[in-house]
Amino acid sequence: MGGLAEQAVDRACQAYIDRDLARCHAVLEGETLINATEREIDELAFDLLAMQQPMAVDLRFILAVTKINSDLERVGDQAVNIAERVMDLVELPKVELPVDIPRMAAAVAAMVRRSLESFIEGKAELAQAVLEMDNVVDRMKDEAFIILVKAMNEHPDVTRQALDALLVARNLERVADHATNIAEDVIFWVRGADVRHGANPESSARQEVSDTH
Amino acid sequence: MGGLAEQAVDRACQAYIDRDLARCHAVLEGETLINATEREIDELAFDLLAMQQPMAVDLRFILAVTKINSDLERVGDQAVNIAERVMDLVELPKVELPVDIPRMAAAVAAMVRRSLESFIEGKAELAQAVLEMDNVVDRMKDEAFIILVKAMNEHPDVTRQALDALLVARNLERVADHATNIAEDVIFWVRGADVRHGANPESSARQEVSDTH
Repeated sequence: MGGLAEQAVDRACQAYIDRDLARCHAVLEGETLINATEREIDELAFDLLAMQQPMAVDLRFILAVTKINSDLERVGDQAVNIAERVMDLVELPKVELPVDIPRMAAAVAAMVRRSLESFIEGKAELAQAVLEMDNVVDRMKDEAFIILVKAMNEHPDVTRQALDALLVARNLERVADHATNIAEDVIFWVRGADVRHGANPESSARQEVSDTH
Repeated sequence: MGGLAEQAVDRACQAYIDRDLARCHAVLEGETLINATEREIDELAFDLLAMQQPMAVDLRFILAVTKINSDLERVGDQAVNIAERVMDLVELPKVELPVDIPRMAAAVAAMVRRSLESFIEGKAELAQAVLEMDNVVDRMKDEAFIILVKAMNEHPDVTRQALDALLVARNLERVADHATNIAEDVIFWVRGADVRHGANPESSARQEVSDTH
């Protein structure tokens, strides 16, 4: 599931960079498998809860898995959204926009990769590092927003392209928020602590996939 | 939790209509309580799973509750996002925009209310009605998008206001998607069926809080 979600984001970002319709279609088609896999994992978790009645760390693990599963499915949705923006962009004249989407995409991909590593290795320290990366991505998105609104104002003829880029930046920020959620669920599982909403003062507040700009 | 989330959306929409900063602040302040309530419900669910080891319909109920809880918290986040857009709008000159946000807000509020009713009364038929309302809201958002992009192109001086309204429309559409998720979780609990992603052919596909435009 993690691999599928990661691949979807990578493909969507590469599609943006290369204005590549084939990769967009691959992302759209891949969504069916991601959705089916989410259901399968959910059913497995349900059966385990119903039949094994797990306790303590095992129960925490299964609950963390169901949440991570849901976040990964939503990462897949964001990849679909990016692919759809690219499909819109490809139909429009190519313009230079003052925003570095590839740099943002690289930072977000690194967060997703590390959050999955922290899960696979059961390492809370790795997960903690993901939480710290999230602020960087938030700042990139805020900057993109300001610059692109300015571009729309000054060059109305590129409004639609700038809007597409702005929405891609927002989708990337949401992917980063889901990676943050995954990292927090790993910490919950490994340490038994709930780090959401700054309940644990030494950690960052949970990212609620909010779009403050 | 449902009441808090519903109130947050109502306040944010009323703030948009009246350009009312006081209501915006009420939404931002209300988020803390929503987040705390989410944690509390999550902990109760965890304790029940750990100590009572519920089976069959009880297990389905608790799993549905944890998902509904998470969707309601995200509804609260969307209300915060709307309030932030309103705070931006209030600083800009007031302009007439060709979009009926109040009508969309009313449709979305009705979906949230009915999804909560279906949960409280345990009625799958009510939940089914929510699924059918979702397409209407999606269409409203698509129309808003097309009209507002046109407005930005033709009147660059209102770009920022039009963008704020566009983002409010998207946030409302996301609230509708969360109401749809809640309705599906009610059906899962009551009927024991998973209606996500069109797994059940007689129902609509699960709304994945995606933004296809």
